[in-house]
Amino acid sequence: MKTTNSMLLLQPLQIGTMTLQNRFVLPAMVTRLSGEDGYINKDIMDRYLRYAKGESGLIVVEAMAVHSAKSGPLLRLSNDSFVAGHRELASRVHDASPSKIVPQIIHFLKVARSGWRQLVSDLSLDDVKSIVHDYGAAAARAREAGYDGVELHMAHAYTLSSFLSTYNMRHDDYGGSLENRLRLPCEVLAEVRRQVGKNFPVGIRFLGEECIKDGFTVVDSKKIALRFAKMGADYISLSAGGKFEDAVKKVNAPLYPYTGYSGERCMPGRNYPDLCNLYMPAEIKRYLVMHGLHTPIVAAGKISTTAQAEEILESQSADLVGLARPLLIDPDLPKKIKEGKDETVIRCSYVNICKNLDENFKTVRCFYWPKGMIQAPESDDETPPQWNASGAQLSVEYKHGKVSLTWNAAEDNEGIYIYDIYRSIEGQPFERHHASKSNHFYDTEVVGGDALAYYVVARDFAGNCSEKSEEAAIKIPEFEYSF
Amino acid sequence: MKTTNSMLLLQPLQIGTMTLQNRFVLPAMVTRLSGEDGYINKDIMDRYLRYAKGESGLIVVEAMAVHSAKSGPLLRLSNDSFVAGHRELASRVHDASPSKIVPQIIHFLKVARSGWRQLVSDLSLDDVKSIVHDYGAAAARAREAGYDGVELHMAHAYTLSSFLSTYNMRHDDYGGSLENRLRLPCEVLAEVRRQVGKNFPVGIRFLGEECIKDGFTVVDSKKIALRFAKMGADYISLSAGGKFEDAVKKVNAPLYPYTGYSGERCMPGRNYPDLCNLYMPAEIKRYLVMHGLHTPIVAAGKISTTAQAEEILESQSADLVGLARPLLIDPDLPKKIKEGKDETVIRCSYVNICKNLDENFKTVRCFYWPKGMIQAPESDDETPPQWNASGAQLSVEYKHGKVSLTWNAAEDNEGIYIYDIYRSIEGQPFERHHASKSNHFYDTEVVGGDALAYYVVARDFAGNCSEKSEEAAIKIPEFEYSF
Repeated sequence: MKTTNSMLLLQPLQIGTMTLQNRFVLPAMVTRLSGEDGYINKDIMDRYLRYAKGESGLIVVEAMAVHSAKSGPLLRLSNDSFVAGHRELASRVHDASPSKIVPQIIHFLKVARSGWRQLVSDLSLDDVKSIVHDYGAAAARAREAGYDGVELHMAHAYTLSSFLSTYNMRHDDYGGSLENRLRLPCEVLAEVRRQVGKNFPVGIRFLGEECIKDGFTVVDSKKIALRFAKMGADYISLSAGGKFEDAVKKVNAPLYPYTGYSGERCMPGRNYPDLCNLYMPAEIKRYLVMHGLHTPIVAAGKISTTAQAEEILESQSADLVGLARPLLIDPDLPKKIKEGKDETVIRCSYVNICKNLDENFKTVRCFYWPKGMIQAPESDDETPPQWNASGAQLSVEYKHGKVSLTWNAAEDNEGIYIYDIYRSIEGQPFERHHASKSNHFYDTEVVGGDALAYYVVARDFAGNCSEKSEEAAIKIPEFEYSF
Repeated sequence: MKTTNSMLLLQPLQIGTMTLQNRFVLPAMVTRLSGEDGYINKDIMDRYLRYAKGESGLIVVEAMAVHSAKSGPLLRLSNDSFVAGHRELASRVHDASPSKIVPQIIHFLKVARSGWRQLVSDLSLDDVKSIVHDYGAAAARAREAGYDGVELHMAHAYTLSSFLSTYNMRHDDYGGSLENRLRLPCEVLAEVRRQVGKNFPVGIRFLGEECIKDGFTVVDSKKIALRFAKMGADYISLSAGGKFEDAVKKVNAPLYPYTGYSGERCMPGRNYPDLCNLYMPAEIKRYLVMHGLHTPIVAAGKISTTAQAEEILESQSADLVGLARPLLIDPDLPKKIKEGKDETVIRCSYVNICKNLDENFKTVRCFYWPKGMIQAPESDDETPPQWNASGAQLSVEYKHGKVSLTWNAAEDNEGIYIYDIYRSIEGQPFERHHASKSNHFYDTEVVGGDALAYYVVARDFAGNCSEKSEEAAIKIPEFEYSF
């Protein structure tokens, strides 16, 4: 590991008129903390202040509507009455830390419990004009509220993404070719720029790949990125999937775009390798540089370790790393890395309970947070947890296709947050494998023939680690066969 | 480009007792040329002899059933009466060329027009035992027929793949954990080995990634590959997707596993970048080598150029290249490359008409083959096509979001097969972009701002090229916006 001084992750980055203190980005992430009224409330405020204290370079506030269409709980910037709340949020974030903060602004089409949803081909030209106008007005409000910039939501299943999509079935100037699919997003970008001026950063989030049948891939998205870069977008943040086309219909519920395969590719879980979406920003970055454009690119998707994040920058696959789930579980990740305390970061295990909460329209919190908390724990305690006098006494046993691990509970002056389980296969170096809230764990990710070794550490609310437990090894019986 | 002598693609490879003359593999590809009776017929024979003449190192004959279950037209090796036909096929291929030939043997579960399909969890333990037995017996017949080896089909939507799948819902020893999902495939491999002995190559084709929600990815497939390699599989051939779980239901037709997103990932079309599935074999190869295993790996999935194929071997991402659609359009590809005539290869354009024919249960042929032919054209003519006295007169025009290209028809002593369209963007080198059967073409893959240049060449049945046409350039109007 490099010294913190030389880490690219900790280098500032100028984006238009805003200077990010480091390369960590909190991408827009639904919280379901907002009320039906669309105003900023205390829970929302607390959530983003928590990220600010953790010193993310850029905080993107969850999507907020540019228009007044009906929806479930959702923030709004759709008229001037909403500005005051946002002004308070931006101001408090600025007071709390050097983090920059931008809102993600969204337009969405109608969905019904029947499963019906409005398509871009249902919109009149007047509807299309309204979208341009509403985006411009909301961006102007974002500036008025004291935000450091604005991010245009052109990803997932929402209006501008649906225009960019190969599923855009319009047969006028707004569909039928890539150029036409780009038309409304470009008109929106131009109008937003007209409203906010040159010295207010405008970022765009869109899809590196739709991850649906007949959807677009980097073959198109690199051209889309090139267009936005040429038009002066200040940064480009790449997501993947999250579409209606493959969403799973539930009875008496509107389609929700993260329930299908494309939703899984948007928030890849344990069944995916780390960095599984990185090829998208990497190809787009390469393509822009080839065209002489150096628009900062945000990569996201299961960036699990500090070394991986640093390598993304080093390999010039992207300029910024978007960490949603890793910052949910530990908003202090950037600060801890800056202070050289990488080993105290609480790491995401990608079990996607947060994704599941969102799909079920419940408050999005991290499953690993101590019981009842709706914000990440906060602590500057420096006393690490201790094993009791007899040690951790880690024992492992293989039965019913799983390795069962048990150990003694650790003790701490504040409380135990989590146990991290480290694993080595076949004598390879130990890697953090999973986490547990209690002092037992089943490892189902094993196969016959695996020579496994484990140790566990306990962490308190600040992420301070106990000593490692003793190691415990087990050989999973080989599959038996005879020729 | 290297000289042919130094090309890794042209180096022989020993696989158990069989020596491949080069690294080109024809993966099993449905032809729909077989009759309902399951016997080898003349059309089938012609199809594989055509590949043999083209000198692919390994020809894998389309999937044939190990059991006698009802199905549409499908080859069989399910009883001894089928052996004679296969013996003739293997023998004629060996007479025609040094190509090695192995059959892919398959077990599948029942599907009904209602949409019902049998699941692995519906099988009794006796059913499971029969599968093991039937695979062993069919493999023994493959050996008896004079094939050079046998390939076990564990990919896509068929029985053994469904056991490997995370969708295997059995709750006995054959499901519920990766080890249990592996059990039947391993029992089959062991039984096949018992039946054919050590000196008969046994390959396995399975999925690097299921490409369905909650499906497995390389996280599991590398462990699956490791198991097969440890058990002595002679080669591992990797495909992707092709599952029932996301297949599109049509009224009064059984589900067909290539109709959904995963089917698209199996045979990636023009919307995908070249080599889009290469990360799967590359990761698996790396993992096997890390474990000291050097089982040959076959990579497949939109390997479009000779340079790409060579680079796959050079980077040690795989040991063999599987070319299905590229060998369908031009079975002579390996021979032409060996003879240093790469420029005469007729290249696939990935428009996937072949995939579409298969989905509609029609004879699989290449859309670009001259009209009416059910086999690839064959010619050793050396006279290239000519433009007429006034030249090709290529003209380009941009309208309605497309570039319309027209040129004069070329002339040839035998006949014109195809026109190849080369394109350059923004002064980058020309690349083969697409193909046309007639002397006009619409390029829909353009976007405002593109500075494009084109030329075309005509090819005869042997792939001989005409002179390049003159170049024609066009600038697609920029998207207009003002701030």
